[in-house]
Amino acid sequence: MGEVKSQYDIFRQKVHIIIYGTSTKAGRLFDLILLGLILLSVVLVMMETVNSFDLKYHFELVTLEWIITIFFTVEYILRIISIDKPWKYIFSFYGIIDLLAIMPMYLSIFFLGTSIFSVVRSLRLLRLFKILNHPQFTNQSVQLKQAINASRGKIVVFIYFVLIITIIIGSLMYIVEGKESGFTSIPASIYWTIVTLTTVGYGDISPVTPLGQFIASFVMILGYGIIAVPTGIVTAEIAKNSQKPTTSGHTPCEGCGAEDYPTDANYCPRCGHKF
Amino acid sequence: MGEVKSQYDIFRQKVHIIIYGTSTKAGRLFDLILLGLILLSVVLVMMETVNSFDLKYHFELVTLEWIITIFFTVEYILRIISIDKPWKYIFSFYGIIDLLAIMPMYLSIFFLGTSIFSVVRSLRLLRLFKILNHPQFTNQSVQLKQAINASRGKIVVFIYFVLIITIIIGSLMYIVEGKESGFTSIPASIYWTIVTLTTVGYGDISPVTPLGQFIASFVMILGYGIIAVPTGIVTAEIAKNSQKPTTSGHTPCEGCGAEDYPTDANYCPRCGHKF
Amino acid sequence: MGEVKSQYDIFRQKVHIIIYGTSTKAGRLFDLILLGLILLSVVLVMMETVNSFDLKYHFELVTLEWIITIFFTVEYILRIISIDKPWKYIFSFYGIIDLLAIMPMYLSIFFLGTSIFSVVRSLRLLRLFKILNHPQFTNQSVQLKQAINASRGKIVVFIYFVLIITIIIGSLMYIVEGKESGFTSIPASIYWTIVTLTTVGYGDISPVTPLGQFIASFVMILGYGIIAVPTGIVTAEIAKNSQKPTTSGHTPCEGCGAEDYPTDANYCPRCGHKF
Amino acid sequence: MGEVKSQYDIFRQKVHIIIYGTSTKAGRLFDLILLGLILLSVVLVMMETVNSFDLKYHFELVTLEWIITIFFTVEYILRIISIDKPWKYIFSFYGIIDLLAIMPMYLSIFFLGTSIFSVVRSLRLLRLFKILNHPQFTNQSVQLKQAINASRGKIVVFIYFVLIITIIIGSLMYIVEGKESGFTSIPASIYWTIVTLTTVGYGDISPVTPLGQFIASFVMILGYGIIAVPTGIVTAEIAKNSQKPTTSGHTPCEGCGAEDYPTDANYCPRCGHKF
Repeated sequence: MGEVKSQYDIFRQKVHIIIYGTSTKAGRLFDLILLGLILLSVVLVMMETVNSFDLKYHFELVTLEWIITIFFTVEYILRIISIDKPWKYIFSFYGIIDLLAIMPMYLSIFFLGTSIFSVVRSLRLLRLFKILNHPQFTNQSVQLKQAINASRGKIVVFIYFVLIITIIIGSLMYIVEGKESGFTSIPASIYWTIVTLTTVGYGDISPVTPLGQFIASFVMILGYGIIAVPTGIVTAEIAKNSQKPTTSGHTPCEGCGAEDYPTDANYCPRCGHKF
Repeated sequence: MGEVKSQYDIFRQKVHIIIYGTSTKAGRLFDLILLGLILLSVVLVMMETVNSFDLKYHFELVTLEWIITIFFTVEYILRIISIDKPWKYIFSFYGIIDLLAIMPMYLSIFFLGTSIFSVVRSLRLLRLFKILNHPQFTNQSVQLKQAINASRGKIVVFIYFVLIITIIIGSLMYIVEGKESGFTSIPASIYWTIVTLTTVGYGDISPVTPLGQFIASFVMILGYGIIAVPTGIVTAEIAKNSQKPTTSGHTPCEGCGAEDYPTDANYCPRCGHKF
Repeated sequence: MGEVKSQYDIFRQKVHIIIYGTSTKAGRLFDLILLGLILLSVVLVMMETVNSFDLKYHFELVTLEWIITIFFTVEYILRIISIDKPWKYIFSFYGIIDLLAIMPMYLSIFFLGTSIFSVVRSLRLLRLFKILNHPQFTNQSVQLKQAINASRGKIVVFIYFVLIITIIIGSLMYIVEGKESGFTSIPASIYWTIVTLTTVGYGDISPVTPLGQFIASFVMILGYGIIAVPTGIVTAEIAKNSQKPTTSGHTPCEGCGAEDYPTDANYCPRCGHKF
Repeated sequence: MGEVKSQYDIFRQKVHIIIYGTSTKAGRLFDLILLGLILLSVVLVMMETVNSFDLKYHFELVTLEWIITIFFTVEYILRIISIDKPWKYIFSFYGIIDLLAIMPMYLSIFFLGTSIFSVVRSLRLLRLFKILNHPQFTNQSVQLKQAINASRGKIVVFIYFVLIITIIIGSLMYIVEGKESGFTSIPASIYWTIVTLTTVGYGDISPVTPLGQFIASFVMILGYGIIAVPTGIVTAEIAKNSQKPTTSGHTPCEGCGAEDYPTDANYCPRCGHKF
């Protein structure tokens, strides 16, 4: 072994660098093409579901789909052979999605109507989040992630609270409104409560009895107050994070160790030390 | 008396520890089982209201309901006999709910259709808030509670203000829109105003006259501004609370243990100790 | 003159203290009764517009209305005679409302159907804001008022911006959607834009063409971002105000003039001076 | 050349000062009249689209439109001849809008129905943003602009994230709900997702299957949490900006006039002057 590598090993290594790496030009180009094709494949599936469009361009759509499916298949095989522990990839989150994204087209040869599951392909869009690791966005998305992570605990407590309230109000409305006005069951009633509490308000179900409308008014004003809570939580976290940069990153003053001077100060405001 | 306790007293004491306490393993297990059964009982009532499901599994649902009702009845009796002042529990908030939760099933033997009031059982879900006292959530829920409590005064003033505005706008819209377009009475008109001001917008009632639509536009933009107020109140409180922890990272004063001094203090504001 | 006052003058003075003053027990009681009657009169007008209720209790409603109207008339006259410059009251905001509130009932004797304008009476509810001057609420409502006043400038700029955007988007949607789908005129189209941008979303008008739906999606996401602005403005103001009380109001330390010590400090954290 | 200027040059210079300048009284008056006419022209186009109004006053509307169009044409020509590099104006954003605003009327002489494109004129409303440069609003709008600019990066990341989520949920709902309930294609399904996630909720499309309603509930609660993010971003920025003024209440440093030193500084951080 040592320096001696088979032709195949060199090929595998090259493929690995291109597919998994982002440090080479070819690697970045591959990433870009892949993201582009993912987007294109999602657009294709979308277009296929638009009847008027599908009727006109069915052949072109299917042809393009097959081309992309074959590309994705090749990519899938290369990902497996170019990695040392293929099972790790195959059973990873992205590995499963990558497989699910190409399966429906092959199945559609044998079974009619399965091509609809190509929709699964849209999950590959999650790979687009990779772009957020790009230096230009890193700082922004890291700050957002931190804020969201820090507020997760409070948000969980809050949603737990909202869900209990929702079930209680939903049950109440079911009794008050009865079956005539769309509150046909408690689950339907809970669905209505969520629609109202989140201020979405489709209007597919809406109370018709005076008492029901009174309770609904109460729920809406409650929802008004409740929406303030997650907003407050996230805002407080973002505010905390975005205030940090102004003071941190400072080297302490050599004269007295103070750190709370303006970033562009010439003298330390504590001891007068010249920077 | 003294060391001598009747068998019954020992039983009562054990039951008390299990039902009311959370310090023993059995106590925590009981709590978990109880919460699980409450959830299950609520799901059962829900399922019963879904016609298609009820028709299929009516017998199973009713059987399960009876089992749970009997468990809740036993629990209710044990809660009463294991406490020293039973009336205190019976007339407490949870005591009344616990009774209301089991009554409908027994009444349904004698009166048809009363089983619908089993829905009351969903109020027992309030016991699920107990989980928030769990150490893992304590910190989060305490902070949220503090923020909500601190903003309660401002929120009351705000809702008072909104209600008055709502009545005035509702009366105005009643005159402007007339009875044709769903604004059949002032209360209905006020209901519409709340639906609009909270940005829920069912669309079951919506203005059709140009003047009505103009006023509605004004109300919506007002609602837009108004939603900022509760959000602002709660956010400001949460931000205040979540900034506190940064000062508690202090090393306590060696003189008196105080931690609430400014970060750049030279002397402890409590005892005058020089840092 | 001097000490000598006519019986009438003494009566006027007493009435003035009771009606306009809040320092005597009688004055406070009068205020309470007045607010109660205003509330009652508004409820009466509301009930009268509910057909099913009005049919049953028409006589009782009208009788009660007349009693309240006479009380309000007496109050109106007393307010005029007990004040030194009656015109100042008569042409004040509240003076006009007070007159408008009693006129419709008297006019309804001569003209049929004018009693509907009793709805104007709901404007008297504005007097209920007086309660916010009560010491218990003063602090809260003053803080809210300050925050809202401070953000008024920014809110005006913001609404100006939103209105221009609204007209442009409204015009665009009118061309895109055409007359079939409810966008019958530019004003109707602007109404739709406001309904959408404020996330109210009645659904009485909604786009049906793909391009219209695409633009609508864009408007919604824009509205999403836009709602952040007033919220941000008000929140920032409230946060600023609610942070002030902790440091302001301090007397500076006699030793060094520092003001940033905890409210309950015993020693100055800067120079160790004992308070 | 030198002092010698042709009559035409003097005219051009005068026109330039009036049209482009705001320092002379005539210049400010021209601006005011122009903004007024833009508003009037937009109102005219609006009114024309209201059928009942157009039928009555068609002649008056068209006459007024022609007057305004001629005024705008003269203004357009004067803008071109009074500037040294006319092409710069003609191909500028406002130059193109100004041309588009007058074209439809002239085209309507030759082609029927083109007058509808007068709607383009509403884009001239963008000139109304100029008012925000007025000293009274400057401070407010500058602060808002800064806050929005500073949060732009985070908002872009956020919208990118939302769009991907939207496509995935939209595809999912298309499969779950099927074609019966309005989810006729993936684009329509994505449209529904945006309508729901932004809490607009028209109700033109709404889920009818239990699973669909369950996912919808999840989307709404997600939307609830998601709306907190842009609000948090903008609020944090505005709060940061609006806190700055508190430091500007400083007396300027005697040494160098700097005002941006910490409130408790002992030395000026700019020039080292001892306070």
